[in-house]
Amino acid sequence: MKIGILTIGNELTSGRIQDTNSSLIARAMQEQGWAVAGMISVGDDDDAIRAALAHLLARVDAVIVTGGLGPTADDITTAAVAKAFGLGLYSDPAVLAHIRARFEKFHLKWTENNAKQAVFPEGAEIIPNPNGTAAGFALRREGRIVAVIPGVPAEARRMLPEGVIPLLRKAFPEAALHVETFTFKLFGLPEAAVDEAMADADLAGLGVGIGFYPNFPENHLVLTARESSADVAAEKLREAGKRVEARLGKHIFATGEETLAGNVARWMTERKFTLAVAESCTGGLITDRLTDIPGSSAFLERGVVTYGNTAKTALLGVPEAVIREYGAVSAETARLMAEGVRKSAGTDLGLAVTGIAGPSGGTEAKPVGTVFIALACGETTVCRPYAFRWERRRNKVMASQAALLMLWRYLTGELRDDG
Amino acid sequence: MKIGILTIGNELTSGRIQDTNSSLIARAMQEQGWAVAGMISVGDDDDAIRAALAHLLARVDAVIVTGGLGPTADDITTAAVAKAFGLGLYSDPAVLAHIRARFEKFHLKWTENNAKQAVFPEGAEIIPNPNGTAAGFALRREGRIVAVIPGVPAEARRMLPEGVIPLLRKAFPEAALHVETFTFKLFGLPEAAVDEAMADADLAGLGVGIGFYPNFPENHLVLTARESSADVAAEKLREAGKRVEARLGKHIFATGEETLAGNVARWMTERKFTLAVAESCTGGLITDRLTDIPGSSAFLERGVVTYGNTAKTALLGVPEAVIREYGAVSAETARLMAEGVRKSAGTDLGLAVTGIAGPSGGTEAKPVGTVFIALACGETTVCRPYAFRWERRRNKVMASQAALLMLWRYLTGELRDDG
Repeated sequence: MKIGILTIGNELTSGRIQDTNSSLIARAMQEQGWAVAGMISVGDDDDAIRAALAHLLARVDAVIVTGGLGPTADDITTAAVAKAFGLGLYSDPAVLAHIRARFEKFHLKWTENNAKQAVFPEGAEIIPNPNGTAAGFALRREGRIVAVIPGVPAEARRMLPEGVIPLLRKAFPEAALHVETFTFKLFGLPEAAVDEAMADADLAGLGVGIGFYPNFPENHLVLTARESSADVAAEKLREAGKRVEARLGKHIFATGEETLAGNVARWMTERKFTLAVAESCTGGLITDRLTDIPGSSAFLERGVVTYGNTAKTALLGVPEAVIREYGAVSAETARLMAEGVRKSAGTDLGLAVTGIAGPSGGTEAKPVGTVFIALACGETTVCRPYAFRWERRRNKVMASQAALLMLWRYLTGELRDDG
Repeated sequence: MKIGILTIGNELTSGRIQDTNSSLIARAMQEQGWAVAGMISVGDDDDAIRAALAHLLARVDAVIVTGGLGPTADDITTAAVAKAFGLGLYSDPAVLAHIRARFEKFHLKWTENNAKQAVFPEGAEIIPNPNGTAAGFALRREGRIVAVIPGVPAEARRMLPEGVIPLLRKAFPEAALHVETFTFKLFGLPEAAVDEAMADADLAGLGVGIGFYPNFPENHLVLTARESSADVAAEKLREAGKRVEARLGKHIFATGEETLAGNVARWMTERKFTLAVAESCTGGLITDRLTDIPGSSAFLERGVVTYGNTAKTALLGVPEAVIREYGAVSAETARLMAEGVRKSAGTDLGLAVTGIAGPSGGTEAKPVGTVFIALACGETTVCRPYAFRWERRRNKVMASQAALLMLWRYLTGELRDDG
């Protein structure tokens, strides 16, 4: 089955807004096993919309359209699509009542132009919008389908799996396999290495697809099974997942919707562990990521950003002599920072990072990207050196990722004290 | 003049990579005053490329194509475009020598497929690539132009203004006005309020265009002047800029390529001010943003993330009684945090944030999004209450922005102690 995507809006063709819907829809289609033959963006222009629709309909089985369903005069998608199909327009009483009820619920002032959002081409199948006033619709013509949904990403993101995909699966039963996906999140492994590790896994023989999505600083590996029954798809996915874990297990830190910081936060909270963090080159990014997780105050007692050397001494008790002898960026300093922050905070764990983010500050012995990460666990302190090779921001992100990963490995019992 | 954009690559139609080139090019065209009539993305597929090119060429004066210029077998853009124009291919000796030199310079192993990047359609005009091996090219046909550049964003970003736009300006002299743009960065003002403030500025009468680009948590206002001489364009832009500053000056924190954190860092460094930061709800995001600026160690002595109340007391000397009486999220606590971190660090300034990021922790009196920001300047401490209404991450970003803005206003002498 072939799919076309048409996103509509002057904000796209003027470059004012980055179109994220095309990519979102393309990925969802890929997961269904449907090929995207083309994606077009045009402005709110009747002729351009019709020409783009005609171009796509000549090449695909279904076109998914987003944008231009708002109440204002420049939103013309419904009228343009109706015109392209030679259809008249009608007002749907149920949708109109839904919109009016939403206005009352949120105490919004009703203006007559909002009634426009209840207008559809004759014969359209309504696609409900649980998050907004702009309902979508679908039209069928000569075995082809055009499905139109709003351009607001939060609304499109929900209406796609709940409204559009079920509609397409029903309309094209030959394409209606049960599709299940499963995501592994990895760090520290380039695509070529993943390919190599997975070479003998024979997922293709199992009928499971594998996709690799770079997502700096992570890589996401997505398994897709398309089968005639949901049970078979799930079973194949479980088997494929085992093969991935056997080969890449130590690089996997999260699956599905989990995140690294989220997993760390969950384990810390469940086990009632407490943490203090001392950051130099990451500048607060580690605690920023941890505090993005709701409820992180349960385990994060404090963070200190010791950018100056005096702060390392005053707040963490790192002796000036150590900094002088080994340098602020050294394993010795990192260890003492981790132990110092743990002790002063009275927490179970102390995590510390010191390094050279760049662009300046590097030396021959310690070039830009040199980072030391230490975890003080009470009885022992583990410290690891890293050499990142990016610009400043990416070095910070890599260092924060490596630090959270060290913590995660400790929590899951996989961190070895080999230093 | 009308422009079409064609981005090519299976990574786009599979949703694996978000296409950012279309938006980048669309915005550059908008600034030139050229309308983008359509943007198409297709996979590395000969037929799809030719059909998309034909669709666009029927509607526009020039098509800008990105992607599919790599050395591997799946990169077929050059061959597909040549075929669409009925042209043969040739190998360009100068480009081949340039590619070989690059391989030698970076000590890369030469493989024969790299010679493919020196192959162009007959009669093509080469567009040099200063950042990579894939040169671009342009073809002319019946008064229309097709310009092809690589899909790597860093390369496209540079070749667009240096190669493609000059070529189009030369080819379409009627469109070759001098274009100058100027960007103002604002915070805390919705688009409607900007519209209202600018209503009597009559920039249209001056012949200067105004664009408004939301860039959470900031809004960017871009002025564009298109004139027959660069001097006239610059002069009109200066006059328009004055009118913007007169109306919106207090909301502007940066212009051009400047950033809020960068401006703060520059002023702090120039005036040899030192800073210490105490963060609760922002969790380290403020120091993270400041330490993104190279050289920030010159002014940032330390940051502390006092997520627990005991840390507020132990590290900042906020009396337990104050937290008990007024709450950890209160003006009283924010002031004492700012003063405490300033005193303990011995810095000129102390900046503190405490608040409720959400989703839980809100009360009727202090709902989610309640934030207090304080700046201790020595002789005085300024504290302001804020009420943000977003989810957790956006509340953190807004709070960090408001805090940096308070600091910026102090540095520029615009902060008033009214509370």
